[in-house]
Amino acid sequence: MSDNQAVLAANQAFYRAFEQKNLEALSAIWLKGDNSVCIHPGRPPLKGWERISTSWDEIFKNTDSIQLTTETIAAGVSGNIAYVVLLEKLSQVIQGRSVDVQSIATNVFARTPEAWRLVHRHGSPILPMMPPNQQPPGMSRRN
Amino acid sequence: MSDNQAVLAANQAFYRAFEQKNLEALSAIWLKGDNSVCIHPGRPPLKGWERISTSWDEIFKNTDSIQLTTETIAAGVSGNIAYVVLLEKLSQVIQGRSVDVQSIATNVFARTPEAWRLVHRHGSPILPMMPPNQQPPGMSRRN
Repeated sequence: MSDNQAVLAANQAFYRAFEQKNLEALSAIWLKGDNSVCIHPGRPPLKGWERISTSWDEIFKNTDSIQLTTETIAAGVSGNIAYVVLLEKLSQVIQGRSVDVQSIATNVFARTPEAWRLVHRHGSPILPMMPPNQQPPGMSRRN
Repeated sequence: MSDNQAVLAANQAFYRAFEQKNLEALSAIWLKGDNSVCIHPGRPPLKGWERISTSWDEIFKNTDSIQLTTETIAAGVSGNIAYVVLLEKLSQVIQGRSVDVQSIATNVFARTPEAWRLVHRHGSPILPMMPPNQQPPGMSRRN
């Protein structure tokens, strides 16, 4: 298996664990270091495996079901680092209600002696275009 | 200069060009390939240098001034790939009005014979926490 194929397989394993709400499978994919970072769409960065693990546990507990499809936009691998950029389409059921979300992700993998592990995940929302007088959330005007 | 220092220098050069609204300096930092990707906060991905360049040109034309500070959250380099994750604080003046924005960025660099070049930039907004009945934009409920 080439590096490229191994990285895409690790990436697929991540999404399978995500869709199946399988924290154990997800844990096996993440690098457990203090430098691992996870950014859930629209949320501040979480650094270190402990915080990241807790956040996924909460997401899985609060979500009845997840269906997702992805579209790879770009990818690269060299040495012990690889990245994959994807468009994600999620259909979730949260507290009995269906929620469709489209997001973008940059997943960065690090090669370890055992396998490629997820060391950084940056998810983000795609916001609707807003007229200048309706700032997207997160922006504040001073005058 | 170590690889790490060279990547951080390239990253700094990117932010200097951004702050100075200097498209020429910015162009020198980006890798000009079809696989280069730029995601402006909340916007869909732009692929290929032509689209990326046009977007920065528009941003610079529509922005009177930019002041920014960054805080590095994580970074890694191996082989010909490097990544830097940062918290960005931007104070912009757009059409005479001051707008403060906080965003997160994952910048991926590729080593070329000349220098490290930006091949992927993923910027995203930090949204305020919303109660379940006020979905963040980009989410749609089916029932």
